[in-house]
Order: sequence, then structure tokens, then C-alpha cells
Amino acid sequence: MSSTRLELYSYWRSSASYRVRIALHLKGLDHKLHPVHLLRAGGEQHRPDYLQRNPQGLVPCLVHGATVLTQSLAILEYLEECFPAVPLLPRSPAGRARARMVAQSIACDIHPLNNLRVLKYLEHQADCRPPLRSEWYRHWTETGLRAVEKLLAQHSPDSTFCVGEEPGLADCCLLPQVYNARRFHCSLAGCERITDICQRLEADARIQAAAPESQPDAE
Amino acid sequence: MSSTRLELYSYWRSSASYRVRIALHLKGLDHKLHPVHLLRAGGEQHRPDYLQRNPQGLVPCLVHGATVLTQSLAILEYLEECFPAVPLLPRSPAGRARARMVAQSIACDIHPLNNLRVLKYLEHQADCRPPLRSEWYRHWTETGLRAVEKLLAQHSPDSTFCVGEEPGLADCCLLPQVYNARRFHCSLAGCERITDICQRLEADARIQAAAPESQPDAE
Repeated sequence: MSSTRLELYSYWRSSASYRVRIALHLKGLDHKLHPVHLLRAGGEQHRPDYLQRNPQGLVPCLVHGATVLTQSLAILEYLEECFPAVPLLPRSPAGRARARMVAQSIACDIHPLNNLRVLKYLEHQADCRPPLRSEWYRHWTETGLRAVEKLLAQHSPDSTFCVGEEPGLADCCLLPQVYNARRFHCSLAGCERITDICQRLEADARIQAAAPESQPDAE
Repeated sequence: MSSTRLELYSYWRSSASYRVRIALHLKGLDHKLHPVHLLRAGGEQHRPDYLQRNPQGLVPCLVHGATVLTQSLAILEYLEECFPAVPLLPRSPAGRARARMVAQSIACDIHPLNNLRVLKYLEHQADCRPPLRSEWYRHWTETGLRAVEKLLAQHSPDSTFCVGEEPGLADCCLLPQVYNARRFHCSLAGCERITDICQRLEADARIQAAAPESQPDAE
């Protein structure tokens, strides 16, 4: 099972793909990368050959032998269970829960609101005044990251990374969200802990290899 | 640890609270319920005594001795790890991933878009035309549940519940989302599998005990 080739369908700027790339590189797992361009020709994720693999037409998608997985957090947990060396989660249930709380406050409370499909809906279906799209983006990102900052202060005030002394599941989610926040000129005021953690993450060569700009499909 | 009292801060109509209540009742775990009224007096979740416990001011919140947890999926995984009898997840990594994929396609792709705070933002900050709030709600619920239906067809076409022959993690998320869909008159056309599964879930006395209408704070 564990010797079967891992294949990742990814788009360089997709932050959910970026989460999985960080995990693969942290764990040192050899994998084949298949770029899927989300914008070119109406989106390659809608092509019949891709839809056969993933009928939802989303990236990332991880193929491991007969197992085809979507949803980045489900993929991270799968990698953790199949390849436990270089763990992404602490050992204790309470520690594991702390990491998952941070991961989910990003993956559930920030990211879904600023997805491409939601921004498109706001612009095309919702008939809102034009600056709303960027106000909306900044509002949910800034509100959400301040909530993450509070969570880190409450649950792991002294750790080097989000939870503990090594990068893990929560960090896999944090850095891509902060990358997006910077790209869209969101304020990180009041998020000093997050900024510090991201600086340490970005200094890690394994994580650099997972960065959008390091991908073969980067533009 | 496992003999320490479980305390759940919950609101009867919060679907994230409902997920955790289902898990507690499926596992037969004795717990003390603390109702938190999300609307009364500006929202009891913003009261200082509650914020001390959970600075994010969200429900559900599970207290287990010194451990204070938020984020419903992190709570479900914690309960699974601390109280493995009556499992909510299959044994194999691929099976566990299938359950998490369904849970996350609800918790990440549907629920966050229709949260109270998002609907309020649309109405008060976004200056959109009045029917948008309910169009928006129906759009993301119906799109999202159709995606879940596809996921079930692809990954577990023959199982009695979402994944397997007993209710589990994915079912804890599915039923509350369908409860909301019905409450807001969303169409479940094309979601026959989901409708069947929910019928079986609603016939389970343990799950009936977790329903919004069975709660002491139900109105």
C-alpha cells in the first residue's frame, strides 16, 4: 500500500492544493504532480478526463493506487495515517484536537467564503456594488485570521509552530491562507504570532519546495 | 481522563452543535448540556463568562476536564479518539478518508456560506437586493448537497449510511445540514440517496434524542 505511487492533481495558486503539497514535502513523500489549470480554457478541472477521477471538479485530488481522495483535510489525515513517520499531529487527543481546531478554523471559517466560485457568484449573480468583492475578501480573511490568533494565544501560547515544536497539520493550513491574505492586501495587524510562525515556516526548505512559485505550473 | 464529565455548550438550532450531539448520543456518552442562546439579548455567546471559555464566541464548545474544544469536526475526532467504543470512523485509512471527505464537503463547502454571520453581512453590509439572502442560502445548500450526492455515489454506492452499515462521522454532519435545507425550503431534487440515508438516521432513537426539537432550549 505505502509503496504505491502518490499522484497529486494540483493548481499552483490553489491554497487547498498548497496545504497538501506542504504535507507531502514535510513527510518527504515522493509523488507525481499533475497540474490542473483552474482558469485556462474555462478550467481544466471541468474536462471529462478529470471529472472521471473527481466528479466534483475540484483540486486538490490525491490518487494512491485505487484510492482517489478529495478535500484537503481528509487528504492530510490520510497521509498522516498511511505515512506516520514525520508526524503532522501530536500524540495526545487534546493536542491533536488543538491542531485540528486551528486547521478547521481556517478551512471552515475563512477559506470557503473566499473561494473563486463564491467571489464569482457575488459579482455575477448577486448584483452587488462593485467594491464588494474585495471588501468581502478582506473582511472574512481579517476576521478569520484574528480568530486564529486568539485560538493560538489561548491554546498554544509558547509553541514554535501552531501547535508544538515542528510544523504540522495546522501550519499546512496557516501558511497558504496567509499567502492569500498578502496577495489580496489584507491587514495582518494584531496577528503577530501568525506572522512569526509563517516566517519560520517560510525558512524551511521543504516548505519552500511546496510554495506556489516553486511549482512547474507557476506563471 | 475518560471518566471526567463531558459538558457541551450548545444551541438547539445550531447545526454544528447538532453534529456533536448526535456523536455523543451515538456513543452513549453521558454529558451535561449548557444551552447558549445565540439570538437572545444580542447573543449569550458574547457574554463575558462564555467568552472566557471560548474567546471566539462560537458554539459548540466541549469541555472535558481541563480540555476546552471548539470546531465541531475537531470535537468529533476527539470523541472518537477518547471513546473508541461505538466507532464513528471505519478502520482502514481509505474508509476513514471517505467519511471525512463527506463530512468536510458539508462542513467546508456548504455550512460556512450559510452561517448566521454571513447572512447578516449580506443583508447589512453588502447592500444587496432583498431576495438575495434566501437565493444565496438555497444556491449553496442545493449545489453542495448535489455534490455530496455525487460523492456518495462514487465512493459508497451500496452502504446503508453515508459510509458503511452504521451511522458515523459523515452522518453526524449530513442530517443537520438536511434539517437546515428543509427549514429553508431548499430543493432536495436529485438527492435520493441523501433523503434515504436521512430517513434511516431519523428512525434511530439515539439520533432522535439529539434533534433540535428534543433539546431543553427548543422553542
